[in-house]
Amino acid sequence: MAPEAAWIDGAAATALPLDDRGFAYGDGLFETMRAAGGRIALWDLHLARLLDGCARLGLAAPEPAALAGDCAIALRDAPDALLKLVLTRGGGGRGYARPHAAPIRRILMRHPLPASSDPRGLRAVACATCLPLDPRLAGLKHLNRLHQVLARAEVDAAGADEGICLDGAGRVACATAANVFAVVDGVVCTPAIEAAGVAGVARAALLADRRFAADIRVGELWPEQLARASEVFLSNAVRGVQPLREFDGRPLTVGPAAEAARQALSRAGWVES
Amino acid sequence: MAPEAAWIDGAAATALPLDDRGFAYGDGLFETMRAAGGRIALWDLHLARLLDGCARLGLAAPEPAALAGDCAIALRDAPDALLKLVLTRGGGGRGYARPHAAPIRRILMRHPLPASSDPRGLRAVACATCLPLDPRLAGLKHLNRLHQVLARAEVDAAGADEGICLDGAGRVACATAANVFAVVDGVVCTPAIEAAGVAGVARAALLADRRFAADIRVGELWPEQLARASEVFLSNAVRGVQPLREFDGRPLTVGPAAEAARQALSRAGWVES
Repeated sequence: MAPEAAWIDGAAATALPLDDRGFAYGDGLFETMRAAGGRIALWDLHLARLLDGCARLGLAAPEPAALAGDCAIALRDAPDALLKLVLTRGGGGRGYARPHAAPIRRILMRHPLPASSDPRGLRAVACATCLPLDPRLAGLKHLNRLHQVLARAEVDAAGADEGICLDGAGRVACATAANVFAVVDGVVCTPAIEAAGVAGVARAALLADRRFAADIRVGELWPEQLARASEVFLSNAVRGVQPLREFDGRPLTVGPAAEAARQALSRAGWVES
Repeated sequence: MAPEAAWIDGAAATALPLDDRGFAYGDGLFETMRAAGGRIALWDLHLARLLDGCARLGLAAPEPAALAGDCAIALRDAPDALLKLVLTRGGGGRGYARPHAAPIRRILMRHPLPASSDPRGLRAVACATCLPLDPRLAGLKHLNRLHQVLARAEVDAAGADEGICLDGAGRVACATAANVFAVVDGVVCTPAIEAAGVAGVARAALLADRRFAADIRVGELWPEQLARASEVFLSNAVRGVQPLREFDGRPLTVGPAAEAARQALSRAGWVES
């Protein structure tokens, strides 16, 4: 979907220089953000993940004020929007070698917000595509996302709404575009995202909420635990908390844990527009 | 390095639409090719890898004649050149979901050929960045290349020419931009590239050469074997056969195996320009 408007380093743009390293190698990071009433939900957490990613990839950190300024321009005409912010290592370099003292490039794209999720909950399937064990890059929302593309193709082929991937050790990692929470033996569990997958910003907000996080277990979640979970829900910074009403053909009840998560995300400033 | 000329789907271009999935997710493939006298070395092998990649990623296969036509236009004014051909899943789609019946996009960029390698051989180091075990994508030259970028940064920090990466199981996989051959106990060995790394086109040409490949062992190569190899050389479609004169501080002799590989690549049509 082409963006309705876009900016590169703060200037209106419609296209990317062909030598951009984001295009060449996926050498960059992105954030997909929800704005309502001109405010970006969970902004501090988006920014924290970006800066962590810059440090881990050796990208020059952007000025937070420049990023906020870009977003303010984008939201002036459209206060309720989805913003996709991409940081790349800019242009050039010879092959994989990083250009010396390269300034990063900021690409901001505005899209309409997606329609609200079905309140009855989503239908999800288990994906055969697994996420390789990759502690070096785990957690980051970098631009190397072929596994998510392949997993999403499985979801579409199954006619489902989402899909859940395992990591290379056979543990539950992530949904294709969300984090997973499951109630197992009465305890809310979520994968640690230390070896594979994206550590979502909505997940971070939930884990930072004292009331919600008090009884949560962050660690290994195995497929057999997911298969007998009494409740499963997903978290995503744009779509919020999305309970599952079905996983791999098994009906699930939309229950109190998802509702508690929704309230926690609300306390973190996430709002339906 | 900005290309000296570029074409998208056969038309001259300087920039990429911002919704291109190659940029968004690394959802595509590329080939970096050496042209001399208007002919692309190892063209059939480049094409074969691309088509294999299309099949494995569920990309619509391009018409080989369209690709050859793009290259012919690019080489008209510059018969000796480096051509980088990128195929992406085109624009759009919602999130990771693939657009229905999307035509692929062909991006061709022309650069000058790099200078010839030092005939005394290269200095290489062992990289700490390892390539995750990923049989689903192993071998392909897809656009998700962050590990190569990180490994190459180690090479530059060490002031070396190249670096050799292990896979997630601790076996030798690849150099950052080349395949590895080592003479161990008198036998030429090269990693199988079934779990990680790129299966290079120059490597494929060497393995297809009956005389050269007769005595080669394709399989596991362990770091301790590499550490006692009597000879190590790299293969790359643009740079050809590059012997190492040093690996991780240990001097190596440029020997007969590299020379035999050079002759085999020559028989496959690879020429110094």
